[in-house]
Amino acid sequence: MDRSDYLKEPVNHIKIAGTLTVDQLMQQFSNSGSFGAGRLAAACDTYEKMLKDPECTVFLGLSGAVVPAGMRTLVADLIRNHLVDVIVSTGACMVHDAIEAIGGHHYKGGWAVNDQELYKYHLFRIYDLFVPEEDYVKLDFKFSDMYTDIARERKGESLGSDEFTYEIGKRLEDKNSILRAAYEENVPIFLPAVRDSEFGFIHWLHSSQQQDQQDVLKLDAFKDVPTICGICADSSKNGMIIIGGGVPRNTIQSSTLASKKGLDYAVVITMDRPETGGLSGSTLEETVSWGKMKGSADHVMVIGEALMVFPFVVASVTERLGRDFKRQPFLQRTKQASKGKTA
Amino acid sequence: MDRSDYLKEPVNHIKIAGTLTVDQLMQQFSNSGSFGAGRLAAACDTYEKMLKDPECTVFLGLSGAVVPAGMRTLVADLIRNHLVDVIVSTGACMVHDAIEAIGGHHYKGGWAVNDQELYKYHLFRIYDLFVPEEDYVKLDFKFSDMYTDIARERKGESLGSDEFTYEIGKRLEDKNSILRAAYEENVPIFLPAVRDSEFGFIHWLHSSQQQDQQDVLKLDAFKDVPTICGICADSSKNGMIIIGGGVPRNTIQSSTLASKKGLDYAVVITMDRPETGGLSGSTLEETVSWGKMKGSADHVMVIGEALMVFPFVVASVTERLGRDFKRQPFLQRTKQASKGKTA
Amino acid sequence: MDRSDYLKEPVNHIKIAGTLTVDQLMQQFSNSGSFGAGRLAAACDTYEKMLKDPECTVFLGLSGAVVPAGMRTLVADLIRNHLVDVIVSTGACMVHDAIEAIGGHHYKGGWAVNDQELYKYHLFRIYDLFVPEEDYVKLDFKFSDMYTDIARERKGESLGSDEFTYEIGKRLEDKNSILRAAYEENVPIFLPAVRDSEFGFIHWLHSSQQQDQQDVLKLDAFKDVPTICGICADSSKNGMIIIGGGVPRNTIQSSTLASKKGLDYAVVITMDRPETGGLSGSTLEETVSWGKMKGSADHVMVIGEALMVFPFVVASVTERLGRDFKRQPFLQRTKQASKGKTA
Amino acid sequence: MDRSDYLKEPVNHIKIAGTLTVDQLMQQFSNSGSFGAGRLAAACDTYEKMLKDPECTVFLGLSGAVVPAGMRTLVADLIRNHLVDVIVSTGACMVHDAIEAIGGHHYKGGWAVNDQELYKYHLFRIYDLFVPEEDYVKLDFKFSDMYTDIARERKGESLGSDEFTYEIGKRLEDKNSILRAAYEENVPIFLPAVRDSEFGFIHWLHSSQQQDQQDVLKLDAFKDVPTICGICADSSKNGMIIIGGGVPRNTIQSSTLASKKGLDYAVVITMDRPETGGLSGSTLEETVSWGKMKGSADHVMVIGEALMVFPFVVASVTERLGRDFKRQPFLQRTKQASKGKTA
Repeated sequence: MDRSDYLKEPVNHIKIAGTLTVDQLMQQFSNSGSFGAGRLAAACDTYEKMLKDPECTVFLGLSGAVVPAGMRTLVADLIRNHLVDVIVSTGACMVHDAIEAIGGHHYKGGWAVNDQELYKYHLFRIYDLFVPEEDYVKLDFKFSDMYTDIARERKGESLGSDEFTYEIGKRLEDKNSILRAAYEENVPIFLPAVRDSEFGFIHWLHSSQQQDQQDVLKLDAFKDVPTICGICADSSKNGMIIIGGGVPRNTIQSSTLASKKGLDYAVVITMDRPETGGLSGSTLEETVSWGKMKGSADHVMVIGEALMVFPFVVASVTERLGRDFKRQPFLQRTKQASKGKTA
Repeated sequence: MDRSDYLKEPVNHIKIAGTLTVDQLMQQFSNSGSFGAGRLAAACDTYEKMLKDPECTVFLGLSGAVVPAGMRTLVADLIRNHLVDVIVSTGACMVHDAIEAIGGHHYKGGWAVNDQELYKYHLFRIYDLFVPEEDYVKLDFKFSDMYTDIARERKGESLGSDEFTYEIGKRLEDKNSILRAAYEENVPIFLPAVRDSEFGFIHWLHSSQQQDQQDVLKLDAFKDVPTICGICADSSKNGMIIIGGGVPRNTIQSSTLASKKGLDYAVVITMDRPETGGLSGSTLEETVSWGKMKGSADHVMVIGEALMVFPFVVASVTERLGRDFKRQPFLQRTKQASKGKTA
Repeated sequence: MDRSDYLKEPVNHIKIAGTLTVDQLMQQFSNSGSFGAGRLAAACDTYEKMLKDPECTVFLGLSGAVVPAGMRTLVADLIRNHLVDVIVSTGACMVHDAIEAIGGHHYKGGWAVNDQELYKYHLFRIYDLFVPEEDYVKLDFKFSDMYTDIARERKGESLGSDEFTYEIGKRLEDKNSILRAAYEENVPIFLPAVRDSEFGFIHWLHSSQQQDQQDVLKLDAFKDVPTICGICADSSKNGMIIIGGGVPRNTIQSSTLASKKGLDYAVVITMDRPETGGLSGSTLEETVSWGKMKGSADHVMVIGEALMVFPFVVASVTERLGRDFKRQPFLQRTKQASKGKTA
Repeated sequence: MDRSDYLKEPVNHIKIAGTLTVDQLMQQFSNSGSFGAGRLAAACDTYEKMLKDPECTVFLGLSGAVVPAGMRTLVADLIRNHLVDVIVSTGACMVHDAIEAIGGHHYKGGWAVNDQELYKYHLFRIYDLFVPEEDYVKLDFKFSDMYTDIARERKGESLGSDEFTYEIGKRLEDKNSILRAAYEENVPIFLPAVRDSEFGFIHWLHSSQQQDQQDVLKLDAFKDVPTICGICADSSKNGMIIIGGGVPRNTIQSSTLASKKGLDYAVVITMDRPETGGLSGSTLEETVSWGKMKGSADHVMVIGEALMVFPFVVASVTERLGRDFKRQPFLQRTKQASKGKTA
């Protein structure tokens, strides 16, 4: 590069005069273009491109307390508007969704509290939120029966995690539920670590109550592997948005690797850092060496708390797309679908 | 507390349907109320309260690459609209402002670059921005002369850092300059570590060029201590907003301690964490033990990159205040003023 | 508390005169007692107590690149010396162990490298380490056959993740292998997210190669839930050491909750922070509200990179225990064992 | 690079069998060579090289609560053994040293405490340590008198920060004091932000008590700039070790830039991260673009809490050097010295 190549774009300074829409401010971040503000603006640009690219399948990875923090409706709406095509989540995120779907709540609280008193009161704390134990108990019994119902309907079949979430979504009524919205819109939800959540402990309760082994719900740990890889393989392009990291990020990236596609677009929002060698904080550059992401991919890592950052991204992109934007469900754009939905 | 006290406010979920203004989204963060989103909303509320409290003096602490990142105009506008009363800054922030004031620029670049090539090209890197060495050289010579001019005008007086910034602001013409705006609006800018910046190295150049010792600008390291403490003491209430941390945060907090006032409002935006024992990441609760902040103070620490977070705070509060909001300059609200301004 | 209660222990300053053993320095950290050094010393104390408590079962949670980073032998030795009783791991950690067990290696490299060149060379990067793709390919084919062998031996039985690791360990020969050591010493290894690793993609290869459905290895996602909960329930006391966080931490904590025991000892070594609301960075205090840890538990969270911190803890505790320390295998201390081992 | 170039050094796994000295473990980190453990081992190697290089001047940057955390004796011993040549510190670190030098103490405590009660008891908190207000009050009065004494001895001369610390060290008696050791060993201590500490507020007290303006101690904010730059210029090579970051890191780096030398060796121990654009977390690669560090320099950044990491570095290097290692004071190796010392 010549020296002048480095000096092409002077920073334009942000100007806030009166009321701004979210995207008006984001466009200014684009012009200033540096540090976190520049990364945030780039995340909006990348997500917008994914959505406008008719060949791209959009994977959303969910980890952390997305639902308790207030993003339940936001995610459900993304599903209903087909602004995400596939979800890969921790078990806990869907447990939290299920708790609210059957009438439970998360409550605003604080973090400088007496946890021994909370324990005495049977209140569980998630950083600065509380959730009463009785909502978990209610979930345990209601879902234990639901497991029996699913086992009977699927007649001893071992399900993949996407089929499991499909069957649950089918049995929920709450329109704001992520699981329900995904069921209705044929958006698969994969839970690669489903066992590591209340869903696993409910299974223990459920299985101990069945007289007939046929009534015990079976989940095949490996069954969803070819399903998600098939989705990647059948998509001309693949993009991902990661809230946090962990198993969901690893599963999506490994799927684009195993399907020999490599991501075309990637947005990661995380507070983790690369130096520990853990996957959650690893740079997107590193994924190129594996073939998980193409070297040419449009990608950005936003260093920030996802529950603060992601709503700004969604608001900005929603504003850009406008009311008339329509996006086809991915099933109409790709050949492959998870078994649950086509069943 | 009774159990029911913990369960008063269920989380309301964020809904993004169509275009939102920044504050419309922020109000939703207020309702969800948790984690980073809740803290960000609380930061807006606290800043709004500071501004609407006619007794409060608002201190803004600047550290990090605030100006290169594109917040120069934003800070200058806060000064001109009297939405901040006193600034405490690193030397570097004002050096960056000065560079742009005399025609230099910061340029958008990247962080995955060849630093040895940049060195060869005489381009300095600040994370993903570049600034050409010649802009620094220009600053060195122009300001070296300016120092001589100031020394002659102040006739051998040893200046405090606030008087130093006042004299510089007086000699700049760029209306977008923070230093110029502060001069025009009588907003004192304190640089407690002024020596640790290009201003210090310019002084070396300047002093080596003077024949007459009388023409050497003198800065008294301790002179601004009673000035800033006096501002705190003369204010009925004191509030602070911290971008980053470091010396500016410590100076503001120590001033409210030494003046025996204690902060009434505090917003800290930082990525630092408390466990290292360093001041920049210390909790606001810790400051209560010292008397730097009142136990009753309205306070919040936002864990995030300030250059991404602060514009959202300003945009949200600006929207709330509306066009007709007027705030008195602090000089008309307090008795004390830094020497620079009253001179 | 009285004022004097706060002023009982003045900090003693660290003195380094000549050669020190690891524990000699750690004892000085105990005396200085503050910040990270104090937390590190407390981690050693807590681990020592776990080991000296004849009623305590010690759970070790592994996440991140523990094996590539050079801790493979260290963990295998902990198993062989019965200094850990149960391991809960990400799938990846055991994949890395398996790669080395069949002759593969991880190589020292750097992070400021050309990832597109690495991709071209079929070299995978893990922060500053490299692993050649052919080691993965070798693993794929060797383990695909191993899966067939296991399926035939277990005659269509659906395995739990602990039975899966037991069967793999049985088939490895490398004495330095974690999987092999655990097999030999009857230490169960749980992989709650086994599907999210190369083990999952190997299954896809394996299953596509089998003519006879009977030869396809089956893993039951939920089967290990009662097994690990049973271990907790049958132990008078439970302790955990967490390297990183993620699924392993959540699984251990949930098991002590579901078994209504609550941890008696806990050490977490992590770089994650609590403000995001994610489990990996959540404080141990928070776990008290759930009943995952007792309010009275001996616990500490060390903020640091586990791959740097944990060897210091092991070295210090090893030194304290001395050569003659013997600890009973947990099977001789508890009634319950995972199926794999008793089979 | 050829493919084989990437595969030269397989990771050797750490083995802990029996008691290890700190350096024995560190040598194993060298062999494993990755992530934090590898960086820590590299920090030891780099510091060892600095000390064995007869041409190198070693700068130590101190920030954060180094003294309260128990590293006071360790730093004083480094000075007395000439394992550091120049110190650049925050004001606070030397205030903490001074408090202990006149009989005060820091006390072990906790962070989950009632800060309002601490305030009531006049106890100041530094994360998990306490310091009683009366120790500060004692410092204020004792040092106010000391300032008067210095002013009289220096007869109205405006001092640089290194002369200021020299004069204080001369008046302290505690052999374990950093300030005293530095005075005795002619090791200059620069405090570029001296005003931002209790030293600044003591000056306010001191100056308000003087009848005669001649008795008021004067500090020239810029006077130490040519002094520290001169040290860099007169050293054939320059190396730095940074505890934390902030003003000390910036001052050292700027001095090697202004003296047109550039660092030959650099070790930074910090928890800060680069993405915010702040100097404390900036990579050492970035400093190359400025000329603050040579492109060929031996350098490493350890991501960790300095108060936990640095003692391991010192213990390891001390062990390597052995009892007979002697290092010349830098004054005998360089021409330039700060005024304080040659006075």
